This record gives sequence, C-alpha cells and structure tokens, in this order.
Amino acid sequence: MELLYEGKAKRIYRTERQGKLLVSYKDAATAFNGEKKTEITGKGRLNNEISVLIFEKLKEAGIANHLIRKVSETEQLVEEVTIIPLEVVVRNIVAGSMAKRLGIQEGTPIPEPIVEFYYKDDALGDPLITESHIALLNAATPEQTAELKEKALKVNQILIPYFAQRNVRLIDFKLEFGLRKDGTILLADEISPDTCRLWDAETGERLDKDVFRRDLGSLTNAYEEILKRLGGPAHV
Amino acid sequence: MELLYEGKAKRIYRTERQGKLLVSYKDAATAFNGEKKTEITGKGRLNNEISVLIFEKLKEAGIANHLIRKVSETEQLVEEVTIIPLEVVVRNIVAGSMAKRLGIQEGTPIPEPIVEFYYKDDALGDPLITESHIALLNAATPEQTAELKEKALKVNQILIPYFAQRNVRLIDFKLEFGLRKDGTILLADEISPDTCRLWDAETGERLDKDVFRRDLGSLTNAYEEILKRLGGPAHV
Ligand SMILES: Nc1ncnc2c1ncn2[C@@H]1O[C@H](COP(=O)(O)OP(=O)(O)O)[C@@H](O)[C@H]1O
Ligand SMILES: Nc1ncnc2c1ncn2[C@@H]1O[C@H](COP(=O)(O)OP(=O)(O)O)[C@@H](O)[C@H]1O
Ligand SMILES: [Mg+2]
Ligand SMILES: [Mg+2]
Repeated sequence: MELLYEGKAKRIYRTERQGKLLVSYKDAATAFNGEKKTEITGKGRLNNEISVLIFEKLKEAGIANHLIRKVSETEQLVEEVTIIPLEVVVRNIVAGSMAKRLGIQEGTPIPEPIVEFYYKDDALGDPLITESHIALLNAATPEQTAELKEKALKVNQILIPYFAQRNVRLIDFKLEFGLRKDGTILLADEISPDTCRLWDAETGERLDKDVFRRDLGSLTNAYEEILKRLGGPAHV
Repeated sequence: MELLYEGKAKRIYRTERQGKLLVSYKDAATAFNGEKKTEITGKGRLNNEISVLIFEKLKEAGIANHLIRKVSETEQLVEEVTIIPLEVVVRNIVAGSMAKRLGIQEGTPIPEPIVEFYYKDDALGDPLITESHIALLNAATPEQTAELKEKALKVNQILIPYFAQRNVRLIDFKLEFGLRKDGTILLADEISPDTCRLWDAETGERLDKDVFRRDLGSLTNAYEEILKRLGGPAHV
C-alpha cells in the first residue's frame, strides 16, 4: 500500500478502494510540538482501540464521522477527507495551555463549554487563532467555522455523560474535521487519551497524555485503564 | 500630587479635582514586554502632543474619550476611569505579531479590518484571547465586548482618512477603554506612534515604535515627522 502521509502519531495509507484510507496508529509519543518524544510499546493499539470505540459511539449518537471499521488492533479504515487545517478544542475545565495563557488555576470549572481554534501548522507551533484569523487564512468560511463550533459542542454533550458513566471527567479535547468532495463536513482524525484530557472522577488521576507530558507514571497503564472502562477488548 | 501608578510609558497622578487625573508621559522606550528598554529624550513630549491631537480629533468625530485638556508639553488632564484589562487591537494590514502568528507576510492587506483582544497582564505577556476567554476572565461582559469592538472599528474609520490625508498609512493600532462610575465605556490611555503602526504612504518608511523595536534609526525623528504631519506644535 502507498504511504500517503506519516504524521507524529499515525501513518495514512491509500487502499485499493477509492476514497478509503487505512490509518495505522504508531507507538510514538510526542509532546510540545515534537520537542519531547519517545517510543511506547502498545500505545498505537490503545489509541486505535479507544478511537474506534469513541467514533462508533458518536456515529450511534448522530455525529457523522470518517470511521468505516476497525481493521486490526492498530489499524482502522476511514473515509478520506480534505482536512480543515484547524484544531477545534472544547474545554469544560481549565487545564494545560489555557491555565497558562489566562493565569487561571488548573481544575477551575468553565461555566459554559468553550470552543477554541488552533491553526494546524507545526512550523508556527499550532497557534491559537480567532474566527477573524480563520477567515483571513481561508482555513474555513465563517459558515463552516460556525458549523465546526456547533458540531464540537454536540460531541462534547455526547462524550461528557459517556465518560461520566465510566467514572471519567472529560476536561477538554481536540477534534479535527475534513471536507468531503461534496463540501459536507465530516469529523475525522482521532479521539483518544492523546487528544483528550481525562481525569478519574474520584481521585483526579490523569488518564491521558499529561502522564507523558509531565512524567506522571506509566502511559500504557493510564490508557489501558481508559480502554477497560470503555469496555474495550483486552490485549490478546 | 499623589503618584497613583507608574507604568512603562506614563505616570498617573491624582489631582485635587475628584475624578480627574494628570498623565505625565515619560521618555522611556520599552518593547517585547519590557525586555528591551532605553531612555529617549523628547519621546514623552512627542507622544503626549500626538495623543492629544488624536483624542481631540476623535472627540470632534463623536468618540467620547478621557481627554480633558493638554496641560504641558508632556502632560495632559484626563477623566479617571476603571481600565478594562483588554488591549483592543485593530488591524488593516498584516504586520508584527500577526505576521508571525499566522505566517503571513508583513504588508499583506486585510480585506475587512480585524479586531483582536489581548489580556492586559504583563506577567502573562499580554496574551491574545478570544471572546469566550474575556467572559471567563470576567474582563468584560459579552455586551461590553461587542461595544468595544464596535467602538474600535469606528475609531479605525475615523483615523484611516485622518492619517491618509497626511500621507500616512494606518497599519494597526491598540486601544484601551475604561468604565465610568455609571458603567458607560470611555476610550482612554493613549494613541501615539507607540501604540500604532504608521507607514509613510509613499516610501513605506516606519514612523512608529518599530523604529525602536527593530533598530531602524532615530525614533524621535520618526515621531517628530508624525507630529509635524498632524499639524502639531514645534518644540520650543
Ligand atoms: N479521514 C482522513 N482523511 C485524510 N486525512 C486524515 C483523516 N483523518 C486524519 N487525517 C490526517 O492524518 C494525518 C496523520 O495523523 P497524525 O499522525 O496525528 O498527524 P500530525 O502529526 O499532523 O498530528 C493528520 O494530518 C490528520 O489530520
Ligand atoms: N483615564 C484613565 N484612567 C485610569 N487609568 C488610565 C487612564 N488612561 C490610562 N490609564 C492607565 O494608566 C496606566 C499607565 O500607562 P502606561 O505607562 O502606558 O502603563 P503600562 O505599562 O501598563 O502600559 C495604564 O495602566 C493605563 O491603562
Ligand atoms: Mg495528530
Ligand atoms: Mg501602556
């Protein structure tokens, strides 16, 4: 198969079937725009399994998305889209870069979920941008931007109780969307502990990439715990 | 007189008259959040004179503002307000931090003027923030934020031709607003080559603080040129 693109976390292959891509999740862990990186055996499987479960849940709940089906422990088949170069972040609780940017203590609840847009450009360090910047950059039209925001907030309303029932607090998460040939917007990329902040509802224990960013212990233990709580398959 | 506050560019004194402050412009030049600084004789006079002329022009054009009157070459009397901790930036042409943030070449025209908000907090480095952040920080209500934006765009529509008639392109500028006791919003602080980007309309020569930021020559020559084009008083 032809390798179309190798990113920090996944390899994307063209398949024989027109418009369908194979996504292969890697064992690489990266943070701080690639400054910190290492290899963590099992991470690719965990993120692939978790992302499949979440995208299936979202499809059930009415959010059209790129997932076609799981192919193997580390691979999934997805619908090809043209990725909109925006990272759409939804936040329920202040954490990470928002805590730093605004000088608000991590853990502070946000009265109404906040949607932020980051320009997906590694060379620029994925900067926070405003809706005016999105239009200026031609990254999306104002109508598309409004739709992204609406879709992201819907995903949030589905995932908050989904995780809460599993004793996990959904602090924040990042989404990517793409355009189909017909111009419709489709949720794409991944949703996993690499792209969400997930805290144990009782203990506040970090069960996400902050374990790696902040050296808080075993990343695979944390991600395995999430996979288990989502009812995912044990490793064979 | 009691010194109320000493900032990077001005000293603010309480006067005998309730609700009226004396602003004394300093000769200090600072950039990059105070990392670069020096003393430039005459700068205080130039910014005070220029700011007085611009605030008078804006008042004539219907923009209520804090200026009461010029007191001396380096001092003005203003109405005291509670400053809203936002820097309201209007941009007509891409330059400075916007060029860097978005990877767009300096000098690129912006189809519709863009308003940005920065959180006025030196310790945080005056970060760019979104309207959601403004609400979360309680820096302003959504209604106040909308009013700030509207007022800033009005100021832009007044200042573009004002400068253009004087052969100067208004690239971008920063405004600060404050609240009166009755809750109304008043334009405050200063408008000067320290807070605007001003390019000679023919040559593109920088006639603003970038002369200092980028070591492009004599700051006082550039600011004197602006004062002269605005019809300001020659130094006695
Ligand atoms: N359905 C899809 N169609 C096309 N590209 C996709 C799809 N889903 C995700 N991608 C893209 O695949 C690339 C590889 O993912 P990743 O390794 O996470 O890359 P990155 O290092 O850019 O974050 C990303 O650019 C992502 O936007
Ligand atoms: N009318 C006003 N009433 C009260 N404060 C004001 C008024 N106009 C400006 N200020 C404030 O005066 C302070 C001094 O100005 P400056 O030296 O530019 O300070 P800074 O270093 O914070 O930029 C600033 O905090 C500014 O917001
Ligand atoms: Mg990615
Ligand atoms: Mg100032």
